[in-house]
Formats: sequence, structure tokens, C-alpha cells
Amino acid sequence: MTKIAIIGLGAMGGGMARSCLAAGLEVHGFDRDADRTAAFRAAGGAEGTLDAIAAGIDILVIVVVNAAQVEEALFGPEGVAARLRKGAVVVSCVTMAPDRAREFAERAGALGLHYLDAPISGGAVKAAAGALSILASGSDAAFRTARPALDAMAETVFELGEESGAGSAMKAINQMLVGVHIAAAAEALTFGMTQGVAPQKTLEVIAKCAGSSWALQNRGPHIAAGDYTPLSAVDIWLKDLGIVLDIASRAKFSAPLTAATLQQFVAASGSGLGGEDDSAVAKVYARNAGLTLPGDS
Amino acid sequence: MTKIAIIGLGAMGGGMARSCLAAGLEVHGFDRDADRTAAFRAAGGAEGTLDAIAAGIDILVIVVVNAAQVEEALFGPEGVAARLRKGAVVVSCVTMAPDRAREFAERAGALGLHYLDAPISGGAVKAAAGALSILASGSDAAFRTARPALDAMAETVFELGEESGAGSAMKAINQMLVGVHIAAAAEALTFGMTQGVAPQKTLEVIAKCAGSSWALQNRGPHIAAGDYTPLSAVDIWLKDLGIVLDIASRAKFSAPLTAATLQQFVAASGSGLGGEDDSAVAKVYARNAGLTLPGDS
Repeated sequence: MTKIAIIGLGAMGGGMARSCLAAGLEVHGFDRDADRTAAFRAAGGAEGTLDAIAAGIDILVIVVVNAAQVEEALFGPEGVAARLRKGAVVVSCVTMAPDRAREFAERAGALGLHYLDAPISGGAVKAAAGALSILASGSDAAFRTARPALDAMAETVFELGEESGAGSAMKAINQMLVGVHIAAAAEALTFGMTQGVAPQKTLEVIAKCAGSSWALQNRGPHIAAGDYTPLSAVDIWLKDLGIVLDIASRAKFSAPLTAATLQQFVAASGSGLGGEDDSAVAKVYARNAGLTLPGDS
Repeated sequence: MTKIAIIGLGAMGGGMARSCLAAGLEVHGFDRDADRTAAFRAAGGAEGTLDAIAAGIDILVIVVVNAAQVEEALFGPEGVAARLRKGAVVVSCVTMAPDRAREFAERAGALGLHYLDAPISGGAVKAAAGALSILASGSDAAFRTARPALDAMAETVFELGEESGAGSAMKAINQMLVGVHIAAAAEALTFGMTQGVAPQKTLEVIAKCAGSSWALQNRGPHIAAGDYTPLSAVDIWLKDLGIVLDIASRAKFSAPLTAATLQQFVAASGSGLGGEDDSAVAKVYARNAGLTLPGDS
């Protein structure tokens, strides 16, 4: 039976681990937060420390915050990579610079491991439903070995070629667009309010016009309803757009819209909204214009 | 028989006038450019100077460049408004600040005229096909009187209430979003190129991801194909985003993404691309990053 280990049981990793359980796989889950690890075992996760089970793992899925945490988990003083069996596959679902993904793939390869550069898209709800999009690149053998986990976690797997880094690059492109579009939706809905147009009315009309985007249709209703329950938090964008702009800078690529967008999310976080839904960036616009958003007292 | 006059026979107005002809209406077309006026008559437009026919017009459609031209056409020294019969309707299809639309509606009302604040969306191809979207506000009587022209010119008429200005406001919101999304598409597709991802590949994947927008799907293929035949020109955005930011400033609304977007279009126009398709803003990004776009030698 395929044995899967997942490192990182947060909003995304927790749901992905449970999707693998629901698919009938043997799943070991690990998190720095011992409560999360215990909760996952109570939900059906397999027993045993990472040290104890490492040699038997077929698929190691990593869902931590950034490249530094991936490096530590794989290649740090207590890193697991050296204890995996040859032929196992590492599936990194972390948003990072493509050159870091290439570096990790090379180091994993030197240990006889396959590596899939496999950032995820879709949010916590889709993670829990096994319905993520995965933007993956790696060798045929890496895809083949990882298949049971990919099938359990994803509705769509984009296969972006053999070269590690391609998955991370596409994730960065997607995050750039989603981030800009969320801020643009907030900018447009609040701008409309200054002209006497309620956000709900703007949504109804623009959804059928050339101004539409996935982000407007997905996040706009949060603003119209005044519901900032965090499905994806403001602070995620400080991290992700920071990574995107870091990649861009190193490529000497000027990205003024992305930069302006990041500053709006920084202002949201700086004014105490970091843990709210990312659509709360609308509150920055509203405050700067003296507007009262729907749901505000 | 309903008698329509259209002032402004450019890329949009010319197509709209021909759509009215195709619907079997009696259409008088006028343009400052005598060649355009003559060409429209040759295509079936009715004869007679504006002075001569003014008293018989049921519907006056105005498709000029800005509010100043609308004011001149209606209320200037040779303005036609005073010569229209009471109960005729003025349909302004011009992108302008909502308070100008309210002002014109009031002045028209004082002369016994109906007024429809009716900006258009969809581009020259849809104008010629009678398939525009019209974002309209005005009284029931204004809509009723204008109906034959609206039906001939539009696929969809959004009825945005009685108050003049609502149509212009929604148009401004839409233009803000489309403009930002076009520049964001250019930013993302060229950013992807720095990471070794061809624009065509980005389009294929992101169209199915959260980063998608109407603008990405509509303009992205121009960039991927290197085809900058102007369906909507760069310079349109200098005008339209200028209007949007002017409205925003007067409302003391800070719109940083729109402002950054306008600057990218200004750079495109300044470097000689003003008459190319608006997707040519990608050339600014490419040049700034030392990239060679598809189709470039």
C-alpha cells in the first residue's frame, strides 16, 4: 500500500492530508504544532515518528510556508531527505522562487529521490475537498510515483514539463494576477461607492461586462456582504507578492501594478487587518476616502 | 417612422449608425469630418443638414470624444438642443464624469427634452454588429423614446435607474477594471517570460485558474501572437483612465492601481505605440526587461 507523509498540517496541508485519508491511503501527518499532529491522528492519520517511518515513505508531501522551511525539513540538521529510500518522491506544494525549486530538485536527485515542483491553488475549502489545482513540473517518474497523492488532493493537475521550477513560475504568475485583481476589485467597488453605486450593483453589472475577473466574482461578494471571514488572509499576500516581486527584481523585471498592490495589502496588514479575508483590503480604500462599507457600523 | 440622428461617425459611432440603418430606421449621420458624413450617406444615410432636420428628430445619439464636445454639440453657439422638438430624447454614449452627465440631463430637461446617460462598452467590432453593451440611466420616458435606437445598437442594455450619472459611473468603474486588467495581463505574461514561460503557455493554464480575467483571455492572445492590430488603441486608455482618475480625485478617492496602470499606458503612448492595440502595453514591460516578445524580430 502506498505510504504518504505530509509535513505541514495548516489550512492547506491539513485539508490535503484528510483528502488523502478519504481516498483510502495510509497517511502520516506532521506539524510543528503538536496539537495539529494529534488531531490528524485522531482523524485517522497513521502512527509513528517521521524518523521511524521515513524509510518506508513512498510520497513525501511538503506544505510549509516558504522555501526556507522546505530546506530545513528536507536538508536541515534533522532533515528527512537523507533517510528516505531511493525512488521515493518529494512533492513540494510551497510557493517559492523557481530557482529554489530547481536547487531542491537537484539536491533531492543527488540522494536518489524524485522531486515534483507542485505549488497549489484553490484555497482551504478546495484543499479539504480534494479539489485543488496543482501546477506541477518534474520527471515522468516523479509524476508516476506521486500520482496516488495527486489524485487524492487535486481536481486538476497541470503538467508543466520536466524542468523543476516551471510549476513555481506558473504559481508566481497566477499569484501576481490574483493579487492585483483582488486589489483592483476592492479599488473599483469602493470607487463606485463614491459615485453612489453600491458594491452589489457594481458586481451585478460588471460580472457581465469586460471588467470582470475571477477575483471580482469570488471576492467582490465578501465586500458587498461585509463578510471578512478569512478564506484567504491579507497576510498571505504580503508573503506571496513579496516572493513574486523578489523573483521579478532578480530578473530585473519592473512590475509596477504588483508593487502598488503589495503596498495596499501592507497598508491593510499594518492597520490590523492581516488576519482578515484578503478582500478586507477594501477597508484601506474606504478609510482613505471616508467611506462606510457595507456591514460597517 | 422613427427618425434618428447620430453625431459622431468614428470607430464607434459609424458602426452604431450603420446598425441603425440595418434595423430599417431612418438615420441621419453627422461628423466634423465631411468625408465620413458623405460615406455614411453613400451607405444609406438620410440627406439634410442638422439644422434642417433638427425639429423632426425623435432620437439624437451623440458619440463624440468627451463631455466638452457633447456640450458644444448640444448647447454651444451652434448647438442643436434648442432646435429639437419637445419630447425628443438625447442619448449620450460618451464616457464622462457622472456630474457632467447630471448637468447635461438637467439642461436638456429644461428644454423639454429627455436625456439618457448611456455610455457604451464592447469596441468597434460589436458597434458595427449592433451588439454593444449600453450602461444607461434615465427616466422611463427617455428609455421608451430611445428604445428603437437602443434595440438596433445593443445586445444588452443595462438599465441603471432614473438618475442621470449612474450610467457614466458604471462605465467609469468598468473602464477602471478593464484598464487595470489589461496592464496586469501584460505584466504577468511578460513576467512569465523572464521565468522561461511563453505567453501562450501562461494563457492556457491561467485561463483555468484563479488568475483569470476577461481582459487576460481577450487581450492575452494578441500578445501571444504578436498581433497589435488596434481593436482598442493604447491612446483610448490615456483618455478613459484620465477621466476615471479625474472623477476619483474630485471624490478624494485614492486609486493607486489605476494610477500605476495609466502610467504604463502613458509610457506606451510616449514611446510611439499610441495607435497600436492596447495590448501593446506589453512592449513597455518587455523593453524595460530586455525581453523579446513573440512576433518581434
